[in-house]
Amino acid sequence: MTSDRQAMVIKFLNEVDGDFPSAISLAAGRPAGHFSERMGLPAMLDATSLYNRHRATTTKDAHAEASLLQYGPTVGIVNDLVAEQLRIDEGVPAASDRIVITCGCQEALTLCISALCKEPGDVLLACNPTYAGAIGAARASAVEVHSIPGATSNLAAGIAQAYDTLRRNGRQPRALYLIPTFDNPTGRTLNDLQRREVLRLCAALHIVILEDNPYGMFRYEGDTVRAMASLDSAGCVIYLSTFSKTLAPTLRVGAATLPETLFGDHAARRALLNQLVQRKSLITINTSQISQAIVGGILLDQRCTLQEWIQPALHWYQTNRNTMLHQLQTQFSDLSMRVNWNRPQGGFFLTVELPFKFDVDAAFECAGQYGVIVMPMSFFSSDSSQDNMIRLSFSCVDPEQICNGIRFLAEYIQRRVENAA
Amino acid sequence: MTSDRQAMVIKFLNEVDGDFPSAISLAAGRPAGHFSERMGLPAMLDATSLYNRHRATTTKDAHAEASLLQYGPTVGIVNDLVAEQLRIDEGVPAASDRIVITCGCQEALTLCISALCKEPGDVLLACNPTYAGAIGAARASAVEVHSIPGATSNLAAGIAQAYDTLRRNGRQPRALYLIPTFDNPTGRTLNDLQRREVLRLCAALHIVILEDNPYGMFRYEGDTVRAMASLDSAGCVIYLSTFSKTLAPTLRVGAATLPETLFGDHAARRALLNQLVQRKSLITINTSQISQAIVGGILLDQRCTLQEWIQPALHWYQTNRNTMLHQLQTQFSDLSMRVNWNRPQGGFFLTVELPFKFDVDAAFECAGQYGVIVMPMSFFSSDSSQDNMIRLSFSCVDPEQICNGIRFLAEYIQRRVENAA
Repeated sequence: MTSDRQAMVIKFLNEVDGDFPSAISLAAGRPAGHFSERMGLPAMLDATSLYNRHRATTTKDAHAEASLLQYGPTVGIVNDLVAEQLRIDEGVPAASDRIVITCGCQEALTLCISALCKEPGDVLLACNPTYAGAIGAARASAVEVHSIPGATSNLAAGIAQAYDTLRRNGRQPRALYLIPTFDNPTGRTLNDLQRREVLRLCAALHIVILEDNPYGMFRYEGDTVRAMASLDSAGCVIYLSTFSKTLAPTLRVGAATLPETLFGDHAARRALLNQLVQRKSLITINTSQISQAIVGGILLDQRCTLQEWIQPALHWYQTNRNTMLHQLQTQFSDLSMRVNWNRPQGGFFLTVELPFKFDVDAAFECAGQYGVIVMPMSFFSSDSSQDNMIRLSFSCVDPEQICNGIRFLAEYIQRRVENAA
Repeated sequence: MTSDRQAMVIKFLNEVDGDFPSAISLAAGRPAGHFSERMGLPAMLDATSLYNRHRATTTKDAHAEASLLQYGPTVGIVNDLVAEQLRIDEGVPAASDRIVITCGCQEALTLCISALCKEPGDVLLACNPTYAGAIGAARASAVEVHSIPGATSNLAAGIAQAYDTLRRNGRQPRALYLIPTFDNPTGRTLNDLQRREVLRLCAALHIVILEDNPYGMFRYEGDTVRAMASLDSAGCVIYLSTFSKTLAPTLRVGAATLPETLFGDHAARRALLNQLVQRKSLITINTSQISQAIVGGILLDQRCTLQEWIQPALHWYQTNRNTMLHQLQTQFSDLSMRVNWNRPQGGFFLTVELPFKFDVDAAFECAGQYGVIVMPMSFFSSDSSQDNMIRLSFSCVDPEQICNGIRFLAEYIQRRVENAA
């Protein structure tokens, strides 16, 4: 399962959706679509106009709208507004001159991995399981990935062990890809202590942490855990962010925020920023200035915080998560089924552990004969350790679909357990 | 000059513009900005609405607008409209199932180069001089570039020679990057015979031609020369296109159109398309659906031809080109200056040959002391063969600026020639 995971995930979702259009999908992890009226075309026009007026004032550019239609600076044009939003909403000590605006977070990931791991033998560390797009981005740049156990209790130990193993083999771990908050695919969150341990170790070993945080603002209960970038005094965290979940995926606007220094070295950080910008100029030249203007206008309108903006979606996701947890409890109260799951305090996903292997054939059987689509966790894994796991998503379904979907899943599991008995 | 040419070009333009804001720039090659009223925000809104209605009808999707705000298919959503426009406006036998919509043509270039040249020893052929972004895209993917003389008379011979040299050294030329029509940076156009020679040779040697054609629709005189993709019966041309010059750079919408077969092999073409899509999913996931909707709406409104749409800009560029040619004739009628230039029948650029080397220091001196910014051709070159050449752009200046700019350039050249005497 190590090659082309992202392609496999996309292929699976397309095929299973196509084959079983009436099945309930607890597999797709995209944001809910029905809060988009606020992001409809008139709203986008308003946002762009607002940003244009701001731009005309701040840059004294008499042709602000016309210049928005042109090529623009590769590094981006809304960096100051994005920095302010990251400071307010995510507690990240961002500054506009350390941000590259990208075509979605995926481009930021690709740029960072290829810029950090550019010598033969340079390695990216990633949790097992992890987001398939990170592995794919590394592979597309011919960067080797070394997996470490994704369980929280021993993450730092896993990094240390990976470091020793790789160094003994003449290789150099340069970066660690990590979703510390409401992880995709697992839903797990690192606590403050675990974050500090990982930070301390990565600072000592000069491993850059690529902290990907698409779900951090979607917390439904419990205390906020500070972003690793906000705890980083050593200069080892690049913070990756996106407006795909807070505003809309169609904008394709994300950002990479660099620390003030790279391991204490100002010049090294500036050099890395230049490398990211140069690489971006060879891939997408610049992020659409119209998309940036829409983001900029909404940020201006919202005083650079999206906390109010996301409230309707947040409540929806929270209800969905609660519904899913409640229905899991209801359907799997019979302990003989030996089904376990985690209880994420936010995000879009949770992990269910089954008493048997759940592979792609099982997923198709479950979809075709039981009417629910779920994602084998093995799609996100580098080995067989996740073969009994599935990922459930509650972001783009409604409570009724969740209740039915979990019920159908329980019927499938019951049958499998009975057949095995 | 072989490393990081694109970065050097961008750095030069930024620095010289910043240092000499009042100098006239005949260096920047972006499209004219003042035809953008038709592409202003209300027009974009109208186009998106029109496309949305079309989409709601053709896909029977009751939530067409909402789905436009989501993630979308990596391959694109306006492929059918783009295919029709390429058939009408460029004579390219495009079909929607052979097109990948990309974040500008630069992404198409990056995807194609990395997908075609993926084995160690695979080489990209490129003219000398050529567009710096093509060389940069290859280097960013660690693909070796082999330069061939860009003069038209011996292009096929240069390819054959390069092929022999590379094969003897155990390397494999996989692709040829080429702007056959109104080349950037030189302005030269390959005639029909030359195109057929290159096509025949590349078909025989299994070298894919990446035909980049951003300027083909901007012809000011003379007969149209057919696109190489329209002459390609062997399945060796991938056609790269962009809406940056016809509509607006801010859209960041381009396309790669594959031939029906890859050297006669249908399955190989389908496999290549899949590879391009998979690679794109790891870089930008999908091209902004809002940007695609704007393009789609304009294409619907214009019945899939942009020939009328570009008329005002076309006339403007034509006037500018005529003005530049006339002013060159006027200013350099004194043959003692030994200055030569070509007369492109279209596009944004022409080449001027000087009787001395013109390097970056000369460019700064010319900008600072004579008030005109021009681009050393050496920025686009792999060797010293272009050291006496400069690129002049007439796309984003007005006739008065052109007259003054050429006059200032003549003053500088006169001084250089006198000093050398």
